[in-house]
Amino acid sequence: MFSPHPVGHVRSPYTSTQQIPKGLGAKHDAEGILEILSQFEAGLKDIEGFSHIVVIWVFDRVEGFELLGTPPCDNRQHGVFATRSPRRPNPIGLTTVELVRREGLSLHVRGVDMLDGTPILDLKPYLSNIPAERLRRGWLDEAVARQEK
Amino acid sequence: MFSPHPVGHVRSPYTSTQQIPKGLGAKHDAEGILEILSQFEAGLKDIEGFSHIVVIWVFDRVEGFELLGTPPCDNRQHGVFATRSPRRPNPIGLTTVELVRREGLSLHVRGVDMLDGTPILDLKPYLSNIPAERLRRGWLDEAVARQEK
Repeated sequence: MFSPHPVGHVRSPYTSTQQIPKGLGAKHDAEGILEILSQFEAGLKDIEGFSHIVVIWVFDRVEGFELLGTPPCDNRQHGVFATRSPRRPNPIGLTTVELVRREGLSLHVRGVDMLDGTPILDLKPYLSNIPAERLRRGWLDEAVARQEK
Repeated sequence: MFSPHPVGHVRSPYTSTQQIPKGLGAKHDAEGILEILSQFEAGLKDIEGFSHIVVIWVFDRVEGFELLGTPPCDNRQHGVFATRSPRRPNPIGLTTVELVRREGLSLHVRGVDMLDGTPILDLKPYLSNIPAERLRRGWLDEAVARQEK
């Protein structure tokens, strides 16, 4: 395997998990900054051409994991791999953000759901999507349907 | 940080990187199996309700990284964070696959682009997409346009 090391950190308005919108219909439009470490600056060349970026990051304030959990938007247990729970076997988070602008080592983005200071492991360009009509979302769609009743 | 450990491995038709479709218009419809380790079985509960899964994995046969590289689909250099190059500061790969069916610990999927035996770090449900009309893809769209001329 490998030893993860940060390539940068997230500047976010959230300093505690309670502040982060959760559950069904939660809007993620908070603005933040991805501050990349100077030794990785060359790796950002041409990133400003992409409207959206996938951020791979670390749940650095979580200890341990649970294979079954009850998400905030449901009252039933689901497997960790069928949820976005932070308590995962490898504490890796994934967020797609909109790139608003780049200023040198600072990527100003919209849609952060990480805590302030979160270590970033990788950035990748968002290249393509799965058309909405092909998506099925299992328990999540069921929870939405129950809520709408 | 944390010490990454596999939660499973990919069974794929690809045993060398030369076999993996690359470049503009490459189709990723190869079928494969995500074999999850038995100690993580409970974490799969309800995953079969999702049509698509995001797989986070390790480029375990890559040594070192390059901040600038020339992708197979272009003749210009781009920063590693603006490409899907395997030679990354943290050797983490990301692939969205279609879940065809689950058989116990085996997830039969379509759209693998990993080598056979690749360690899996995490699975997450694919929940939502960025509408195509909102996507800009910088150098990649420029390379497509040049090729179409």
